[in-house]
Amino acid sequence: MSVPKSVSRSVPSAVSVAAVATSRMSIQTQGTGFTDLTADVAEFLNEVGAKEGALMLFIRHTSASLTIQENAVPSVLVDLTTALSKVAPENAGWIHDTEGPDDMPAHIKTMLTATSLQIPVLNGKLALGTWQAIYLIEHRRVPHRREIVLQFIGAT
Amino acid sequence: MSVPKSVSRSVPSAVSVAAVATSRMSIQTQGTGFTDLTADVAEFLNEVGAKEGALMLFIRHTSASLTIQENAVPSVLVDLTTALSKVAPENAGWIHDTEGPDDMPAHIKTMLTATSLQIPVLNGKLALGTWQAIYLIEHRRVPHRREIVLQFIGAT
Amino acid sequence: MSVPKSVSRSVPSAVSVAAVATSRMSIQTQGTGFTDLTADVAEFLNEVGAKEGALMLFIRHTSASLTIQENAVPSVLVDLTTALSKVAPENAGWIHDTEGPDDMPAHIKTMLTATSLQIPVLNGKLALGTWQAIYLIEHRRVPHRREIVLQFIGAT
Repeated sequence: MSVPKSVSRSVPSAVSVAAVATSRMSIQTQGTGFTDLTADVAEFLNEVGAKEGALMLFIRHTSASLTIQENAVPSVLVDLTTALSKVAPENAGWIHDTEGPDDMPAHIKTMLTATSLQIPVLNGKLALGTWQAIYLIEHRRVPHRREIVLQFIGAT
Repeated sequence: MSVPKSVSRSVPSAVSVAAVATSRMSIQTQGTGFTDLTADVAEFLNEVGAKEGALMLFIRHTSASLTIQENAVPSVLVDLTTALSKVAPENAGWIHDTEGPDDMPAHIKTMLTATSLQIPVLNGKLALGTWQAIYLIEHRRVPHRREIVLQFIGAT
Repeated sequence: MSVPKSVSRSVPSAVSVAAVATSRMSIQTQGTGFTDLTADVAEFLNEVGAKEGALMLFIRHTSASLTIQENAVPSVLVDLTTALSKVAPENAGWIHDTEGPDDMPAHIKTMLTATSLQIPVLNGKLALGTWQAIYLIEHRRVPHRREIVLQFIGAT
């Protein structure tokens, strides 16, 4: 399954690292679903004058998570939600059920997706692909206030 | 599924980056299960005088992994173990079975969780949420000695 | 399930951070399967004179992803492919099917694996374990050209 490859690579660029910039973000979710944070992250990079380096997002919860996914077709997000619910269904005999039937599935979905994301920043912009957006995924049914730490390390 | 949002964000703080500090950690597991490393990571940050930046953990194995999960209720960890075993059961017709029936499921569980974690460090402390702990997950039945690299990049 | 532990840790080493070095990589895949990028990443580190720090890979796509997995036994990669197909099968009633039956499964597989990887660099070398390799996973059936950003932050 490990296939032959054809690889090319650009000449590396290098700059001095000068700064780590941090900001805490608070997001009110509307219950289960995806929230696009791409524009908010871009605004943060602009505000701190980020030029070249790495951007990290870290979510301070275990029943909501982060992912980078398709930004063009909303039905993709519906299917991603369905896929997570198939892997971690409610009422599947979970021992931990004191916080509601959607709580333990939310922890499982968080473990299988991401608690932190890292994205390169080049020329002051997120190096996302054309079809990529940054999403918070709320796994609980009820709206929650969620906290994310944004951190840029690199040249400003 | 992409929901409207209400976002607020703090004014960014910025410091100069001065150091990358690294340490190798060795953990003896007791077979399948979770080992809480949060206090060990905090001790490392204290020892290197970390102030603001990012902490990375990297596990040098493909049959054990890392996750950030609920720290309060032990039954959550039991259910997470069950969920991983449902996604990657033993004796499911895996081609690779020369290292025991728990080996291929261990590789799958590692792929679906994390080989590295990144956590912001603010004011010398891990910016974990109230209910978050850092865990090593041993996926093999038999106890193993596991190696993790800790690395802090930021201001000291 | 949270087990007793026996932890030891080396005395931390520390160096000054001086640089962030970036390169874009382009990989022609041959359709579904794993492509080993370990040697290409090592070449990049050598080229930029990386000494101590962190290496990030970021893939700019939502239907191909990254993982660190077993480098010795090819049958492991076959079973990993099977496992992902069981979690995200084709023709499972996905709403999003306009780009072919393998497209929505590819997005789900990407969400459950990794869009970015972080690996410590020590003494100019990737701190991978003996059995670890860095793989791009192509989730689509048809060959694609994929872009990855490589970024080293640390001392050069």
